[in-house]
Amino acid sequence: MTTGSLNIDRARSAGRIEHDIETLAGPDYTRSEEAIRRYAYTPEYRNTLDYFIGELEALGFEHYEDPVGTLVARNRPRGEKVFGVGSHCDSNRNGGKYDGTMGVVAALEVCRLNEELGLDLPLQLVSFLEEEGSGFGQMLLGSRIIAQRVTEEELREGFRAIDDGRSFWEHAEEAGYDPGRWQEAVHTIDDLIGWIELHIEQARVLQDTDKRLGIVNAIAGYVHADITVHGRSDHAGATPMGFRQDAGLVAAECMLELERLAREAGRGTVGTVGEMELRPNLINAVPGEAQFSLDIRGVDEEGFRGVARDIAAFAKEAAERRGMTADYVQRQTLSATPLDERVVGALEKAAEASGEAYVAMHSGAAHDTMSIADRVPSAMVFVPCKDGISHSPEEDADPADAALGAEVMLNAIRELVAGKS
Amino acid sequence: MTTGSLNIDRARSAGRIEHDIETLAGPDYTRSEEAIRRYAYTPEYRNTLDYFIGELEALGFEHYEDPVGTLVARNRPRGEKVFGVGSHCDSNRNGGKYDGTMGVVAALEVCRLNEELGLDLPLQLVSFLEEEGSGFGQMLLGSRIIAQRVTEEELREGFRAIDDGRSFWEHAEEAGYDPGRWQEAVHTIDDLIGWIELHIEQARVLQDTDKRLGIVNAIAGYVHADITVHGRSDHAGATPMGFRQDAGLVAAECMLELERLAREAGRGTVGTVGEMELRPNLINAVPGEAQFSLDIRGVDEEGFRGVARDIAAFAKEAAERRGMTADYVQRQTLSATPLDERVVGALEKAAEASGEAYVAMHSGAAHDTMSIADRVPSAMVFVPCKDGISHSPEEDADPADAALGAEVMLNAIRELVAGKS
Repeated sequence: MTTGSLNIDRARSAGRIEHDIETLAGPDYTRSEEAIRRYAYTPEYRNTLDYFIGELEALGFEHYEDPVGTLVARNRPRGEKVFGVGSHCDSNRNGGKYDGTMGVVAALEVCRLNEELGLDLPLQLVSFLEEEGSGFGQMLLGSRIIAQRVTEEELREGFRAIDDGRSFWEHAEEAGYDPGRWQEAVHTIDDLIGWIELHIEQARVLQDTDKRLGIVNAIAGYVHADITVHGRSDHAGATPMGFRQDAGLVAAECMLELERLAREAGRGTVGTVGEMELRPNLINAVPGEAQFSLDIRGVDEEGFRGVARDIAAFAKEAAERRGMTADYVQRQTLSATPLDERVVGALEKAAEASGEAYVAMHSGAAHDTMSIADRVPSAMVFVPCKDGISHSPEEDADPADAALGAEVMLNAIRELVAGKS
Repeated sequence: MTTGSLNIDRARSAGRIEHDIETLAGPDYTRSEEAIRRYAYTPEYRNTLDYFIGELEALGFEHYEDPVGTLVARNRPRGEKVFGVGSHCDSNRNGGKYDGTMGVVAALEVCRLNEELGLDLPLQLVSFLEEEGSGFGQMLLGSRIIAQRVTEEELREGFRAIDDGRSFWEHAEEAGYDPGRWQEAVHTIDDLIGWIELHIEQARVLQDTDKRLGIVNAIAGYVHADITVHGRSDHAGATPMGFRQDAGLVAAECMLELERLAREAGRGTVGTVGEMELRPNLINAVPGEAQFSLDIRGVDEEGFRGVARDIAAFAKEAAERRGMTADYVQRQTLSATPLDERVVGALEKAAEASGEAYVAMHSGAAHDTMSIADRVPSAMVFVPCKDGISHSPEEDADPADAALGAEVMLNAIRELVAGKS
């Protein structure tokens, strides 16, 4: 059985989405007055989950939180097949209103439309814990726990809060969760027959091509790593240039070389030094140590992994040329993720039916969908964000685009669920 | 009248100097367990002043502190001519036992020898406040206040504590001082007929030439400044390389260009980027802003000022090439300081009489002597520090060299005071 495409009341949906987004940008939901700043186990994050729980209870959904705090809400008993929708509602520390949150809000709108239009689709909304890493410096943490892509040792000891250095485990327990049962989080996706995540694009492709929808067919993989250069701290005035082991200069060479390598690799490969620390970080001291982060991504697996290998080798050579040493330590890595042809196809068909042109594209940013796409047929929908700016309070997006996205998701799910029945 | 050269009991002086240095490296005198860390208006700094006051009172010296906390002790009433000796006893935040403190200790030893040998030389010991800038980020602060090289606005508002952001003024008042009278500090040097400061060299010239004494005939001038590059923070995964305004890359180019410019200027000119901050400083965000410090020094006035001008221009051009902007803001500057021929000559003569070879040299590091040398005939004595390492807990120096330095200072002062009488 297939079904004709539904046209929703987009203006009404856009109004509800805007109300949700603006509510969640209020002072109860962010730890900063200048930006959205919310992360796991803070009161502001708890308030955000409670807002979604309230809205979903009103639709008759049952909800639970997994052993570390990922929110799950369903309109069918556990064990029955459902279609998954959702994203994350934590933010970057200096974030905007839309990254993640608009995806959960659009998923909520799909649930509302399902109720309102009497479609009775079997749905499960998921809001993954700690996608941005603002709490513990670990991206995609909630979905990686579901995917069992962490170790107990990491959760107990390795992952430490940016704010106070205490362990993830200790914080989870203090927030009332039961991290000892973390492996049971895998069952969150047991019943899913498919998964769609809507997200802002975080780049300029949609804006520059004047499109309101991107249907995502692959997600770039990444390597996150740190390089530490070990030199020698000396007095900045009294140490002649030829007698220095200035770790900062090796860092500078690596920053420029990473840019060169990423451009040379092409095919959308990108490389970024986002964090930098000089030690002792004093105006009158030659830096004795420099530590900086690497974020290297691409959909071409060999391409981006080659950049990571090359910059690690370059750092060692550049340090040696100046009589120093350098360590490369990988923090985290994930392979590029192809998405499911059938889910992508249903979304493209629904996008065509909506009357709005769309772009078939890949995602340069990582998303929770990466953690579950090998077990659940998955795809993503992108909507534009102004000038491609995200991870910033200047982030801007249009609720009307999210409403259009919700319509497209709803029609795709109708087709995919019908195909299963 | 001239006097024959005295030979002191160097072993006894070395023992007293070592006792002072080791005492002041104890837990009551540092805020860190791993390093010496003491700065203005902390209990540890107060304890250090009190130690010197106790020792000087035992020698019959009277003491006072100027309106912001520079310690002055004299064996003649105010208004009578005296010869000045001293240095500073605050430290770098990650400092060693010798930088500054050994100079005050050697000055104290000169006072002890004067008493012990019945020389009755008129002496004034000074321990300048806040030479390192660890409290308020302002180098040579106490001696610059004496030299009136600050403004009231800076003291009231501009200079802020690194620890809590409160003003210098507020901290000084809280510590019981009277910063409203700061201009009276100028009188600290009214009675000085000359000035000698002993300090560790903080470089390798003495070690490499196997000498125990350096007689310093000039001090390098410097420019301290900050450059801020304004780019745009974007998502590190989703923003293609060609669409970025990565402020960190301009900073990296400036770091390498500063090295090139300082080497090209030659004549001992040095340039250092010691502080660096990327914003938002997150692994997955393209740096939207980069701020870094410049420390540029030399005895060739035109040479080092040219480097400062060139790096400021380069930063603007490098930023523009990438579609960004850069600001250059000078934090502080001081001209190169020639020292007094007569005081230098007396020190060289005393060094020759000591039987130890010496090096005539300039100082690449800034010292409080720079602040007073235009009003008081001044010179400095350097003693070796191991491998040239300073501003580090690994800093190491030999009390025996300081004892030799005290003998040379004592004999030079005897000659200079005799020449005045």
